[in-house]
Amino acid sequence: MKKFFSVNDITDLHTIVKEAITLKKTPQQNNHLGKGKTIGLVFLNSSLRTRLSTQKAAQNLGLHTIILNANQEAWTWEFEDGAIMNGNTVEHVKDAANVLSQYCDIIGIRCFASLTNKEEDITEKVYTLFEKYAKVPVVSLESATLHPFQSLADCITIEEHLPKNKKPKVVLTWAPHIKAIPHAVGNSFAQWMNQTDYDFVITHPVGYELDTKFTQNAVIEYNQEKALENADFVYVKNWSSFQDYGKVIPVEEDWMLTNDKLRGTNNAKIMHCLPVRRNVEISDEVLDSENSLVYQQANNRTYAAQIVLQKILENHE
Amino acid sequence: MKKFFSVNDITDLHTIVKEAITLKKTPQQNNHLGKGKTIGLVFLNSSLRTRLSTQKAAQNLGLHTIILNANQEAWTWEFEDGAIMNGNTVEHVKDAANVLSQYCDIIGIRCFASLTNKEEDITEKVYTLFEKYAKVPVVSLESATLHPFQSLADCITIEEHLPKNKKPKVVLTWAPHIKAIPHAVGNSFAQWMNQTDYDFVITHPVGYELDTKFTQNAVIEYNQEKALENADFVYVKNWSSFQDYGKVIPVEEDWMLTNDKLRGTNNAKIMHCLPVRRNVEISDEVLDSENSLVYQQANNRTYAAQIVLQKILENHE
Amino acid sequence: MKKFFSVNDITDLHTIVKEAITLKKTPQQNNHLGKGKTIGLVFLNSSLRTRLSTQKAAQNLGLHTIILNANQEAWTWEFEDGAIMNGNTVEHVKDAANVLSQYCDIIGIRCFASLTNKEEDITEKVYTLFEKYAKVPVVSLESATLHPFQSLADCITIEEHLPKNKKPKVVLTWAPHIKAIPHAVGNSFAQWMNQTDYDFVITHPVGYELDTKFTQNAVIEYNQEKALENADFVYVKNWSSFQDYGKVIPVEEDWMLTNDKLRGTNNAKIMHCLPVRRNVEISDEVLDSENSLVYQQANNRTYAAQIVLQKILENHE
Repeated sequence: MKKFFSVNDITDLHTIVKEAITLKKTPQQNNHLGKGKTIGLVFLNSSLRTRLSTQKAAQNLGLHTIILNANQEAWTWEFEDGAIMNGNTVEHVKDAANVLSQYCDIIGIRCFASLTNKEEDITEKVYTLFEKYAKVPVVSLESATLHPFQSLADCITIEEHLPKNKKPKVVLTWAPHIKAIPHAVGNSFAQWMNQTDYDFVITHPVGYELDTKFTQNAVIEYNQEKALENADFVYVKNWSSFQDYGKVIPVEEDWMLTNDKLRGTNNAKIMHCLPVRRNVEISDEVLDSENSLVYQQANNRTYAAQIVLQKILENHE
Repeated sequence: MKKFFSVNDITDLHTIVKEAITLKKTPQQNNHLGKGKTIGLVFLNSSLRTRLSTQKAAQNLGLHTIILNANQEAWTWEFEDGAIMNGNTVEHVKDAANVLSQYCDIIGIRCFASLTNKEEDITEKVYTLFEKYAKVPVVSLESATLHPFQSLADCITIEEHLPKNKKPKVVLTWAPHIKAIPHAVGNSFAQWMNQTDYDFVITHPVGYELDTKFTQNAVIEYNQEKALENADFVYVKNWSSFQDYGKVIPVEEDWMLTNDKLRGTNNAKIMHCLPVRRNVEISDEVLDSENSLVYQQANNRTYAAQIVLQKILENHE
Repeated sequence: MKKFFSVNDITDLHTIVKEAITLKKTPQQNNHLGKGKTIGLVFLNSSLRTRLSTQKAAQNLGLHTIILNANQEAWTWEFEDGAIMNGNTVEHVKDAANVLSQYCDIIGIRCFASLTNKEEDITEKVYTLFEKYAKVPVVSLESATLHPFQSLADCITIEEHLPKNKKPKVVLTWAPHIKAIPHAVGNSFAQWMNQTDYDFVITHPVGYELDTKFTQNAVIEYNQEKALENADFVYVKNWSSFQDYGKVIPVEEDWMLTNDKLRGTNNAKIMHCLPVRRNVEISDEVLDSENSLVYQQANNRTYAAQIVLQKILENHE
């Protein structure tokens, strides 16, 4: 593997999920692979799980980690090619990416959607420029439209809890939030689910349709109750409007996931990428129930990162 | 040892102090103990000594360290159980503690007193919730009411400078400051001194009485000059009022420690946890004298942390 | 070597440059030297290259690194001896330097010029005080007047690209900028060039003369076109006025380096310490040309740091 931006960078979803579950048993078995090598983790945005799980994965592989909170610790970046840099930006992404490549064998970068410039977000302007100018493999720590480490961890978590003798029904349900949130987790989960043979249904209020580039021919069901029927896994996530880009469109019905809403499910497992707004997106009773897999998802972030970094270090597919 | 929040988490003060002094001679002798393991250091407040000495201790034990400046690098935490999280907090401490436990074998956390909510501070609301939800051993890097690594380092420093053939007299003296400061260092020092057979006296202006939960039956002497008579160790520290919680009550007399004040002492050694407001809490002449132990205290922070982390890794008492 | 503040701390420039080029071939050959030791990197200002290259150098030597973003993560420092600390500063540099020495075997510190107090900047007040109170070797990560790791990396880069059978002509040319920038890189480059037998010319508008303490008897040529004639290396850098301290004096002519300006050179290589304001200091066409050495300079920062740290660890000259 030479980069990790989306599901398209892996050869086979089922295989990599199985490999991750195997390495989870002896996570430090390959700690010679990163010897003498360095991964740089560049954050343009906040991070808890990604920050820690990627460091943990690197440690398991014997990789040295360098963290850069780029805006606070270094210089504000310019993203326009040909820009006359007489404003607030101090270093061009072209130079930053190239320079980071001098010190790192792999670079991870987190660059959220702006939610103010749809064109720049959907073309992944920031990530794409960084990757273009980097001279070493780049992995996404969440970009404007996708969050592949999260989705791989989600697939690992589902695989570990598959119902027996049954194709699972997985429902991605929109949830309320108080502010505009990017689409990356929703898009990414849809993209990865589309690579499985699971029954996959997306439910959200009218106006909250995700980019069809990622949802493809997934079933969209606007009635949350109907969507949740017989679900084995319910993935809860808020996102802002894609059509009316980055806006929070008022919704009349209550979309918060509660125990009451889960009655029609097949004793569904509950998933969320965290951080979660408790009692806004999901009720405490659901999050704190035995069916909640949210901490297992967080734990699997380590092994999702580790299997990818391992493949990059081995330069295998 | 399974946690380290206060003196109550150690079996015997004298023994652990002796053990720390022994490991100081060959600090890297046990660098296999932490192999493949990770300590997460979570800072909700500023830190210099704690930040560096705990990293140094971890390194000596072969432990990998992950630092998290939680508010700047990750998400603002919610501390109310059952909160409807539609405000400024982004992640519940319940989830943060649980998630951090997925990546760390030990977690240290610093969470200062607010000084605005006495009830929450004295019940150690933040620390207690974090510890409750963490699934791995938690150590305090200073909480609302106590600073146990500092106190253990202080005890080590005193032990290294004990007067011969004499029970030492240790005086904790309040000092002036320009702003409201938490009680943790003062409380904690009193709590640890109460576990020794030293003569222990606390002196401060009227209105600056510490919580009797920690001072117990220590001698309180309001006359600083009298308190300092024949002192072998003078520990200087400011704190705000506990009764009129978090307030700075004006004091007429000059409580700054100067050479003049030390005349009646037994050539006393001077201690302070640092950072110190020079020429406000203590005069330069005292801090820069040969009797000052402040840098030795800072140095012993490493061995205080290391003996505790070692016991947690060994899971010995 | 026991410290690294300027070119005066090395025995022979040519020798150390050759040694750096040699270690670049097998950078991890001496990774036993730092075993069990710690370097503390203290940043009072932003940093990308220095932050990462020094960590990389430390890693290559087996040194453990502790980073401290002093103002954000710890306490604001006081620099006045004898200060009554009843203001905004929380810890005296005397105490901070001494305490850091308890945990670190080597300390690096970055402290930019204020550009508001010429006397304090030219006397290197901050760096000098820090070094005075530190008990371990201190290396400069850029101080008020000098940037020695950058200059050593620049010398390595020039050595790697020397013209054959010819003494090289090296030109340091001032470039435009939108704000007041310190003199450290310009001063330092001049200081190191003055230790070589290269033809060294400095060109800048009237009013932008650097401190003659560093430029010594270097040729100053106010006509940029004339200065660039037959140049083999053109080092581009902005700095504010030294005479009218820290001011940006308006300049009528266009001093931005473009291909057009390079016509009279000997197919000159282009150098800049980065970050660079593209199309303000240097045009894209120049920076992105094959003659640009800016990324090689960044890469050589690692080996500049590493040879110095190695000599300090070995305590050789």
